[in-house]
Amino acid sequence: MKLQQMVANLPALPPLNNNNGLPSSNTDASLPNSSIVNLDRGDTVLLESYWRKMSEECTVEIKGWEFLSYASDLKSVCWFMMPELRDALKRLHALVGNAETSDRHIVVGNGSTQLFQAALFALSSSSSSSDDPINVVAAAPYYSGYPDETDLVRSSLHKWSGDAKEYDKNEAYIEIVTSPNNPDGSLRGPVVSSKCGVEGKLIHDLAYYWPLYTPITHKADHDLMLFTLSKCTGHSGSRIGWAIVKDIDIAKKMTTFIVLNSIGVSKESQTRAAKIMEVVCDSYQRYRFDGSSKESELFFEYSRGILKERWQKLREVVKQSDGFIVPKFQTAYCNFTNQSFETYPAFAWLMCKREEDCGSYLEKKLKVVARSGKRFGSDPRYARINMLTTGDDFDEFLERLSNIEDI
Amino acid sequence: MKLQQMVANLPALPPLNNNNGLPSSNTDASLPNSSIVNLDRGDTVLLESYWRKMSEECTVEIKGWEFLSYASDLKSVCWFMMPELRDALKRLHALVGNAETSDRHIVVGNGSTQLFQAALFALSSSSSSSDDPINVVAAAPYYSGYPDETDLVRSSLHKWSGDAKEYDKNEAYIEIVTSPNNPDGSLRGPVVSSKCGVEGKLIHDLAYYWPLYTPITHKADHDLMLFTLSKCTGHSGSRIGWAIVKDIDIAKKMTTFIVLNSIGVSKESQTRAAKIMEVVCDSYQRYRFDGSSKESELFFEYSRGILKERWQKLREVVKQSDGFIVPKFQTAYCNFTNQSFETYPAFAWLMCKREEDCGSYLEKKLKVVARSGKRFGSDPRYARINMLTTGDDFDEFLERLSNIEDI
Repeated sequence: MKLQQMVANLPALPPLNNNNGLPSSNTDASLPNSSIVNLDRGDTVLLESYWRKMSEECTVEIKGWEFLSYASDLKSVCWFMMPELRDALKRLHALVGNAETSDRHIVVGNGSTQLFQAALFALSSSSSSSDDPINVVAAAPYYSGYPDETDLVRSSLHKWSGDAKEYDKNEAYIEIVTSPNNPDGSLRGPVVSSKCGVEGKLIHDLAYYWPLYTPITHKADHDLMLFTLSKCTGHSGSRIGWAIVKDIDIAKKMTTFIVLNSIGVSKESQTRAAKIMEVVCDSYQRYRFDGSSKESELFFEYSRGILKERWQKLREVVKQSDGFIVPKFQTAYCNFTNQSFETYPAFAWLMCKREEDCGSYLEKKLKVVARSGKRFGSDPRYARINMLTTGDDFDEFLERLSNIEDI
Repeated sequence: MKLQQMVANLPALPPLNNNNGLPSSNTDASLPNSSIVNLDRGDTVLLESYWRKMSEECTVEIKGWEFLSYASDLKSVCWFMMPELRDALKRLHALVGNAETSDRHIVVGNGSTQLFQAALFALSSSSSSSDDPINVVAAAPYYSGYPDETDLVRSSLHKWSGDAKEYDKNEAYIEIVTSPNNPDGSLRGPVVSSKCGVEGKLIHDLAYYWPLYTPITHKADHDLMLFTLSKCTGHSGSRIGWAIVKDIDIAKKMTTFIVLNSIGVSKESQTRAAKIMEVVCDSYQRYRFDGSSKESELFFEYSRGILKERWQKLREVVKQSDGFIVPKFQTAYCNFTNQSFETYPAFAWLMCKREEDCGSYLEKKLKVVARSGKRFGSDPRYARINMLTTGDDFDEFLERLSNIEDI
C-alpha cells in the first residue's frame, strides 16, 4: 500500500480499542487489501496541491535557540499564544469577513479538539447549576468526535446527552452548533428552545465556515466560536485551533484548561500557522490592490474550484446510479467573493436508497471505507465520505460507485 | 519590564483564577515592580546559550506543503508519531543509557503533561477494580501540577489522593515516582507498600533523569516512563513529551487519549525535536570517535557545567547567610560520562530556618517569587527556586540573598 493511501486510510478519531484506525477486515476477501479506498477520516490532502505551488513562499526556518520558553505574551489572557499568530488570525478573519474578532479574546489550542474540551470545562465549571454534570447536546447528525471527547475521562462536569432536537430535560445544557455541519454540510443555528429557568450555553463550531466550502453570508459574532487550521488551510498535522471568545472569564478558564492539559501549544506550529495565514492574506492583497496575483494563486478560489469539481463529478455519478442520494444546497451570495455559489462541504453525506446500512454496503461491495451514519447519531442508511482525500482515492471511489449495476 | 524577565515571571502552571501567572502584589510597595525576580515557573532559558552556539546546525526548514495529514506512521501503535522522532529518541536513550527502549512502545504527547493524563486514563480505565475512581498518589513533596492535572475535569476514573507516604487505603492506586524529584531533587523509588489484594500501578516521571542534572547510574526499565524535551534539551515551547511503555494495551489506550484529546501532536515540533536530538547525538559521536567535537560542544557537559556553577554559588551564599538550608546530594558514578558527580537539580528546595512561610518571606523581603512548599503538599517553610532561569535573574537572586542581614 502506498504511504499516501495508508495515510488516507486512517479515521480522524479511531474508536477505543480499534486496530489503530486501519480498515476493518469485513470486506470481500477475494479482493486484494491494496484496493481498499478509505474515505473515513477527515484528512485534507486535497489542499496539498495549492501549498506545493506556494511552497517556497510559506517556508519557515526555525533556529536551534528559539522557543525555549513556555510563555509568549504575558499581556494576553492566553499567555502562550504568539502575538504573530494572533495578528495573522485577526488579519485573515478581517479579510474573509467570517467572524468578528474586535474586542474578543483569542485562545489557541492543540487543534479545535482540545479547545472544544477547554470550552466544555470553562462553560461547565462556570455553570450556576447543581453539582450534576451539565448536558452536552448537538443536533443529529453531529460530528462523531463530540460524544467521545465529552465523555473521555467520565468527567463530573459534563456528560454527553445526545441529539439536541430531542433534548427535553429541565436542566442546564451546552449545545454545540456546527455550521456548515459535519457530516452533512447543512447551515445551522441552535435548536434547543430555551425553557423557563433552564440555562443554555452555546459553542459554535465554525471549522468549515470558510469560502473554500460555503458562501460567507455574514460576520459570525457568537459568544464562543471554534476554528481550526486543519479545515481552514488544510494543515492538519500542525494541530492548531483557535477560539474567539466574548467573555474574558471564559477565555481565562479555557486558557487554564490548556495550561493544565498540555502547558500551551507548540510554538513551531504557531509560527508556521501565522506564516501560512499571512501568505493567504498577502496573495489576496496583491490580487485586489495591484493585480500582481492571479486568481489561480488565491487559496480559497483555487481550493474551492477543485472541491466544486469533485462535487459536480459526485453528483453526476449519484444521478446515474439511482441508488444513492446526496444533499442539495442553496446558492447564496458570498460577501467575500462578491459572487453566488452553493456550499461544497468537506464531506458528502451519502444515503443508500435501498440498503439498511450504507457504510457496511460500501465496505463489502466496493471496498470503500466510509464512516457510518450511526457514528453521527443518525440513520445507518447514511455514510460520510471524505471529499478532501487524494485525487487517486476520489477517482477510484467514483469509478467504483459508477460501476454498480444494481443495489 | 524586559521580555526575558516577564517570561521568567510566569509560573509553569498558573493556579485557577490567577492573574495570568503574573506575580501577586503582596510585595513591598516601596520597591519598583521591575525589580521583582520571579523564580516560580520552570522555564529553561539557562540552556539557551548552548543552543545559540549550535543554532545553525539545529535549524529546521519546513515547506508550505508539508504536514497536511494527521497521520505519520500507521505501523506504529502511536500512529501520529513521526518515525524520525522515534528513531532520534531511541538513539538518544541508547547514547545516554538512561532508559531501555528495545521492545518498548513509544507514545509522543503534547509535553509530558498530556502524557501524564494519558497514563492516568490508560491505567485507570484498565483497572480491574470497582467503578470508584482510582487513587492517585505521590510522595510529598510532589510536583505541584499532579493534583490539578489529575482532578482537572473531576474525572470518575481517577482522583488525587495526596501523599503516597500516608496512603493506607485498601483500594487500587496509581503512584507517581519522580526521580530525580521535582521539587527537591531526591532520587526515588515507590513508597506505597503492596497490601494484600490491593492493585498498585506506577508511573515513573523521569523528566530529570539526564546527565545534565544527575549521574546516570542505571538504565531505567519501568512499565511506564515519562520524559520531556523541556527538561532534556530545554525546548519547553515545543511541547514535546514521550512515554516509554512496556504493555501494548496501555500504549494503545494512551494513544487513544491523545487522539481524543488533541488528535495527535504538532509535526513541526516533532521534526524539530528529532533534529535537536540528532545534533546532540552527533556531537558526542564526533567527540568519541574522531575527536572533531570539543567537550564544550557537548550538550550535557556544557549545560551541567553552568548548572553546577550555579549550585556552587548558591551553596556558598546559603552557607554564609545561615538563614537557609538546601539539600545535599550524594556523589555517584555516572555510566554515561565515566566520572563521579553529584546531582544538580533543576530546582533548589530552599528551607527558611527561622521563617514559617519561606515563599511569603522571599516575596515580601526580597521581591523574589518562588513556589511555596504548600503547593507541593509539603511544609511552607520550604520554597522551590528555579535554577534554570536567566543569568541576570539568578545573579540578582543571589545578590539579594547574600544581602540579608538577619532572618
